[in-house]
Amino acid sequence: MIESLSNARIKNVIKLMTSSRARREQGLFAVEGEKMFLEAPPHRIESVFISEDYLNRHKAPEKCSYEVVTDAVYRKLSDTVSPQGILCVVRSEECSFKELIGDFRGPCLRLLMLEGIQDPGNLGTMIRTAEAAGFDAVIADNNTADFYNPKVIRSTMGSIYRVRLASCKDIREAQELSRQNGVTVYAAHLKGEALYDEISYSAKAAILIGNESRGLSDEAAQLSDMLIRIPMKGQTESLNAATAAAILMYESRPR
Amino acid sequence: MIESLSNARIKNVIKLMTSSRARREQGLFAVEGEKMFLEAPPHRIESVFISEDYLNRHKAPEKCSYEVVTDAVYRKLSDTVSPQGILCVVRSEECSFKELIGDFRGPCLRLLMLEGIQDPGNLGTMIRTAEAAGFDAVIADNNTADFYNPKVIRSTMGSIYRVRLASCKDIREAQELSRQNGVTVYAAHLKGEALYDEISYSAKAAILIGNESRGLSDEAAQLSDMLIRIPMKGQTESLNAATAAAILMYESRPR
Repeated sequence: MIESLSNARIKNVIKLMTSSRARREQGLFAVEGEKMFLEAPPHRIESVFISEDYLNRHKAPEKCSYEVVTDAVYRKLSDTVSPQGILCVVRSEECSFKELIGDFRGPCLRLLMLEGIQDPGNLGTMIRTAEAAGFDAVIADNNTADFYNPKVIRSTMGSIYRVRLASCKDIREAQELSRQNGVTVYAAHLKGEALYDEISYSAKAAILIGNESRGLSDEAAQLSDMLIRIPMKGQTESLNAATAAAILMYESRPR
Repeated sequence: MIESLSNARIKNVIKLMTSSRARREQGLFAVEGEKMFLEAPPHRIESVFISEDYLNRHKAPEKCSYEVVTDAVYRKLSDTVSPQGILCVVRSEECSFKELIGDFRGPCLRLLMLEGIQDPGNLGTMIRTAEAAGFDAVIADNNTADFYNPKVIRSTMGSIYRVRLASCKDIREAQELSRQNGVTVYAAHLKGEALYDEISYSAKAAILIGNESRGLSDEAAQLSDMLIRIPMKGQTESLNAATAAAILMYESRPR
């Protein structure tokens, strides 16, 4: 049983919970909670930590080995107010958009492309909706929150394990790779001329969503194949970014 | 200048920020931030409080009288980590669904009806989307979070002032009033037989959304005119409640 916060493995889990840099360097992320543990693909689980209290109330995990930690140590591991007592470290499978795009060879493709999404709840919700809408992957630029931030992971409700995730330096790079691979980029834009539900989407299509408050950068808008607009009534200035993404993904989803 | 937290008006603002009961009893709510102050309908503003620091950095509000409070007192008023220094108390215009339904006499009507929505961010986002989609009102049962919770208000991005809001004891009451007034209730349900984008919505329609984790209660499902389903791929068990509401509101929106 691990009783001390100075244990090297515990220190590393805390790093994985709090530092996107540590996650990137190690190719690992940490998830808290029983559901997230149960849904984790067994071959990607690196280690499991459970609290004494959890062990008193539940059967021990069967699908893998685990380490018991004192309740006091466990509370420091978790970032939630009411930790569930089981946490696992999982290998991430994020790759670059360049690596990812080569994997898709079929006639149809649906991508969600993100520029500067800041709110972890929004990002997680978008990943969850992308899975439900049948999208093939989510691509984020360097200014988007980290896919493996604990708050993002919680909002995905398990989709974090199942949706292919890729990063790119900036949207220019994503746009160029899209063009080279025959993917049409439809960007959500307040000034878009085409209404999102009056167009027919190409077989290979990407939906591009910009930052929550600034919207899409001018450069990203210019590089897009089409600016599309979700009509708004009343005095609303914009929709929530995850809401806009959901409406566009469902409208353009593969059928 | 108010320098003490024991000032009766300050104590009441703190109550309005933290207690839904106080808000209901007084018919008032408090909002923090400059944008929320600027968008507040002047005739509904009851009082305005600004911090010393705000007054040093901005022009004083012109549209109404205000009270200056010390920065220390202001920090206690606000519930945010970085308060903007201006807070106003606004009269709420929430009414019962029974009162509200009588106001609509046109041939078309769109309502969003909520059963047990718990997350303030979800509730606020739904109100924001309802305005953008051109919905006429949002109706919530007793188990839904309070419309005027500060976190709900922030997520509405100003729609809190513009969308008509009504409450009902339970969904049974809302369903009965809907039937009496010729409103068809379409309930989002994982087992719905009709696909949400393959039906034509009645001129008077309500979209009903259930609790984030439990979904709709069996009773509410039985009392609905039609259960509708948003198709999901992958292994997603459900969509985020605000996401589902947005997809359904946009599909059924008045054109």
